[in-house]
Amino acid sequence: MALTFEITVTLDGFVTGPDPNLEQPLGAGGEALHEWIFGLRSWRERHGREGGTAGPDSDLVAESLARTGAVIMGRRMFTGGDGPWEDDPNRDSWFGDDPPFRVPVFVLTHHPREPEIKQGGTTYTFVTDGIEAALEQARAAAGDKDVAIAGGPNVMQQYLRAGLLDELELHVVPLLMGDGVRLFDGLGPDLPKLERTRVLEGDAVAHLRYRVVR
Amino acid sequence: MALTFEITVTLDGFVTGPDPNLEQPLGAGGEALHEWIFGLRSWRERHGREGGTAGPDSDLVAESLARTGAVIMGRRMFTGGDGPWEDDPNRDSWFGDDPPFRVPVFVLTHHPREPEIKQGGTTYTFVTDGIEAALEQARAAAGDKDVAIAGGPNVMQQYLRAGLLDELELHVVPLLMGDGVRLFDGLGPDLPKLERTRVLEGDAVAHLRYRVVR
Repeated sequence: MALTFEITVTLDGFVTGPDPNLEQPLGAGGEALHEWIFGLRSWRERHGREGGTAGPDSDLVAESLARTGAVIMGRRMFTGGDGPWEDDPNRDSWFGDDPPFRVPVFVLTHHPREPEIKQGGTTYTFVTDGIEAALEQARAAAGDKDVAIAGGPNVMQQYLRAGLLDELELHVVPLLMGDGVRLFDGLGPDLPKLERTRVLEGDAVAHLRYRVVR
Repeated sequence: MALTFEITVTLDGFVTGPDPNLEQPLGAGGEALHEWIFGLRSWRERHGREGGTAGPDSDLVAESLARTGAVIMGRRMFTGGDGPWEDDPNRDSWFGDDPPFRVPVFVLTHHPREPEIKQGGTTYTFVTDGIEAALEQARAAAGDKDVAIAGGPNVMQQYLRAGLLDELELHVVPLLMGDGVRLFDGLGPDLPKLERTRVLEGDAVAHLRYRVVR
């Protein structure tokens, strides 16, 4: 029943490359951040692909997928856009007709939109009355599983500031990015306290898990 | 015979708090970064104190001290000042008559100064002809042990850019600092490639070690 957030971060603290946009949603060079995950057996299985590498990284992703009963994401994470849906060139989202979530997804937006049912168990519900309302709906949908914030960093920060985030996991990749979006930038004063709860050594990635202390 | 650098870093990437100065060399709130080390048995022993906690963190510090045969540091790391030595109010350095290094220390400076011999095996040699000359002298002094860069970040970056750094270890503490000096800021283009070589889970700190790939 925890509210969780996990993200891949470079050694110099970036979660995207510079200048993210519709063509490069992860910014210039940002794909390199996520290369560690594309070859994992558990990730490939979730995306309908064969093969891949077993091991601690794959096990970690499998565990994360298994414990997640609902997902919350921001509008920009969903399409890269903002404003009215009819003006959004990517209004059908990045994730296609058979999205990898396979659980109810709650999209934070200022613009109402009818729910959608996709293949494989993914549903999209568009929530216009704020982060607490989205969390309430997501918790109800998740049952006894966790709710995962899929991003972006701004949405994570909103939940962290509101004292609603329970767990944070950083997948630290051995890369220097030099420029881009930083996970914790602009978090403001009254910084939350964290307690390290787990360190896992993956093949190239270090997985650092923290509990938010309240 | 490796050239190494290790430093404590917050989860949001800072190695000092904001506004480091003579009164607060680690910046506002920066002492909190290093609290993990003050209670360790190996650190206390090196600083002439009794007691302390054994365990993986203490072992890691002991290993690091044992393998270090010489130290390189920047002028600001040494006194917090710059310019001619006679105008530096902290010209005798932060480290007192019995410094914890107990090996030859090479201080990078633009201002010549006679070498000094302190208690316990620490000597200070002031190097005015650049980072490569300092490294050459430090290697000769270290024998078959490693040379450690004691900081600051700017000195580490100079060695990293010059292709001279072999190993980098980050001690990641479960703190958010919000503002301060970042380890990798201003490193510029041509970012080096790193390979993760070790992850150690300490009591509260995650220790991430990288090899610089050349």
